[in-house]
Amino acid sequence: MKISILSIGDELLRGSTTNTNLAAIGRELGAIALFPVMEMAAKDAKDDILDALGILFERSDLIISTGGLGPTSDDVTKNVVAEYFGLNLHEDAKIADRIRTFWSARRFGKMPENVLNQALVPDGAKVIENKTGTAPGLIIESRKLKKTIIMLPGPPHEMYPMLMESVIPYLSSTSKEKLYTEIIYLSGIPESCVEQKAAPIASSAPGLSIAYCASPESIKVFLSGRDMALVAKKMNLIKKELGEFLLSGDAKTIAEEIIFLLSKRKIMLGIAESCTGGMIASAITDVPGSSDVFSGSAVVYSNAWKMKILGVKKGTLEKYGAVSGQCAKEMVEGACKKFNTASGISVTGIAGPAGGTVEKPVGLVFIATRYEGKTVVEQYNFPGTRDMVRRRAVSSALNQLRKQIISCSA
Amino acid sequence: MKISILSIGDELLRGSTTNTNLAAIGRELGAIALFPVMEMAAKDAKDDILDALGILFERSDLIISTGGLGPTSDDVTKNVVAEYFGLNLHEDAKIADRIRTFWSARRFGKMPENVLNQALVPDGAKVIENKTGTAPGLIIESRKLKKTIIMLPGPPHEMYPMLMESVIPYLSSTSKEKLYTEIIYLSGIPESCVEQKAAPIASSAPGLSIAYCASPESIKVFLSGRDMALVAKKMNLIKKELGEFLLSGDAKTIAEEIIFLLSKRKIMLGIAESCTGGMIASAITDVPGSSDVFSGSAVVYSNAWKMKILGVKKGTLEKYGAVSGQCAKEMVEGACKKFNTASGISVTGIAGPAGGTVEKPVGLVFIATRYEGKTVVEQYNFPGTRDMVRRRAVSSALNQLRKQIISCSA
Repeated sequence: MKISILSIGDELLRGSTTNTNLAAIGRELGAIALFPVMEMAAKDAKDDILDALGILFERSDLIISTGGLGPTSDDVTKNVVAEYFGLNLHEDAKIADRIRTFWSARRFGKMPENVLNQALVPDGAKVIENKTGTAPGLIIESRKLKKTIIMLPGPPHEMYPMLMESVIPYLSSTSKEKLYTEIIYLSGIPESCVEQKAAPIASSAPGLSIAYCASPESIKVFLSGRDMALVAKKMNLIKKELGEFLLSGDAKTIAEEIIFLLSKRKIMLGIAESCTGGMIASAITDVPGSSDVFSGSAVVYSNAWKMKILGVKKGTLEKYGAVSGQCAKEMVEGACKKFNTASGISVTGIAGPAGGTVEKPVGLVFIATRYEGKTVVEQYNFPGTRDMVRRRAVSSALNQLRKQIISCSA
Repeated sequence: MKISILSIGDELLRGSTTNTNLAAIGRELGAIALFPVMEMAAKDAKDDILDALGILFERSDLIISTGGLGPTSDDVTKNVVAEYFGLNLHEDAKIADRIRTFWSARRFGKMPENVLNQALVPDGAKVIENKTGTAPGLIIESRKLKKTIIMLPGPPHEMYPMLMESVIPYLSSTSKEKLYTEIIYLSGIPESCVEQKAAPIASSAPGLSIAYCASPESIKVFLSGRDMALVAKKMNLIKKELGEFLLSGDAKTIAEEIIFLLSKRKIMLGIAESCTGGMIASAITDVPGSSDVFSGSAVVYSNAWKMKILGVKKGTLEKYGAVSGQCAKEMVEGACKKFNTASGISVTGIAGPAGGTVEKPVGLVFIATRYEGKTVVEQYNFPGTRDMVRRRAVSSALNQLRKQIISCSA
């Protein structure tokens, strides 16, 4: 099956929105061993959409479109596609009811009539329910043209749940044989090293497809194939090879992993941040339920507050400076004492762009982690911009604590 | 001039990379009143690139391509484009020298020979210097075909400086008349309201083009036209209309604005965060030089730490709860006292997805700001996911403090 993607919306071409839908769709298709042949972004205009449909259907059997399904006058996708397939539109009573209920829950007053445009469905189209918005998704399968289009709304928080709950199962079921996919999450290792170790295992057997997706929070590895036992066997080998970087349980990010590990052990976490300035606390509190293990973080920039709040010694700051392993050690121990926690993280470093010296260059970061009464201090030299240094410090700090917890439990 | 964009790279279609280049190019073209007619993403494969060149050149005079200019075997853009235009490649000695120098500075050992592929230039092509990487950009203008292609590397940190320093000036100079653009940054107002106020002013005069770019940090408004005096006059009217949301000085984000306003007044900032969990501190410390005004932040999740670190009264928590205006007030006053600062921000709320009740639903957030001895407390009800509630709380908190500083100074 040849699939292409049609991204519809002026805002994509004007640059007021980044097309994150394309990446999400590509990633999830990859997980079931499908790979789009091309993508186009077109304006919200009839002629442009018709032109794009022609180009893409000439080169693929199925188009997944995003955008242009809303109620306003610039939302023309559905009408243009219906015209392309020669179909009339009718109002779907069930969708109209859902839209009325959804609208009244938002308490914005009287519903404008054009909102009900979203209940118009091309004859014969399948409806994909939208649980987070009003515009339903639509699937049109044309036997005559031997072409299928799946239309999804543009807002990612509406598109993504529909993709996962309806489109991926639909594509899996229409493909001739059942495809099995296993997914693992890794952290603390670069994507290229993951590939180096995992690719030979996947390619050692026929019919397997492997895909990777890296983010600052984790690396996702997808292994797909038609032989379920083979997928499971090879994934086990990959897990064994990369075991020390494998996230456990349901954790999809390193922050979730830390919360999972600490919750299981009923241990609380205290944090002290200098150059990461709140980013570690923010990553931890990004996870719902983090309050079960997270007591608090002291974001302390100045030496005075490092002393006053965390109890860092004046002598330490004078002798070694704030960016030093000694200071990191006293910071984490101060944070654990302050917040009365058995585990802790501290970070102090030079994020740049200014503030570096020959002895202490930009990117030099000391991270201390504390667990079961023991403090570990590591020195890092991160490359990149201020933002990259800070993000790398966050993921390294969480990984350092993770390693410490695991080695203590082993 | 009709412009289209060609994004080249398997990783874009596989979803392992989000195409941020398209948004960046769209935005910067918008600033000089150009608007791409379409975009395609194609695989790193000869036939796909040739196909895409055909489709796009049929519909535009100029293509800006990104990706596929590197040294490895999957980088085929330059060779395919040279073939399309019927041009031979020759080695450019100056580029080869730059690449050797660049390579030796990275200290990765002996340079592989294929790195010098990047010094091959199609006959007659103009070279765009790449200051942050090795692959130069290339411009081919074909008089015969009346078509132009601008090839840029894929990595955003290489692409973007070349776009700004070379491509935008090139496009401005090739357009028949000089275009003038003014840019302003706003915060604390939705993009749709900005458009509602600014669009009528821009459209009241002929030949002006207005564009918007919204991010959680700010809204950028571009006004372009051929008559410099007219652009300036109309932008002044827009500034007047939207004055209360206008960022001052060189500030491009609301965090930069706060640092600018406080630095000018030599006033320090202390923060106390509950549901934003470090995100405000992280936004502030994201700005280089923030340490001049930022003393620290206490990220306090539990009631115990709200009392112990910030001095919130037990009676307040018992009577009103942690998510209350009273608690927010005591939190900000505690933070200012703790960090000995004359300005402060505190946030307490229910970010969700769990934890909401009928009386205190998910999205309910209290923000207190303090300046010149006065505390202001506001109640917000943010829609959206946990992440959206938290991000809206950050930008609202910074805007609330900004308003307070400005009204005190007025």
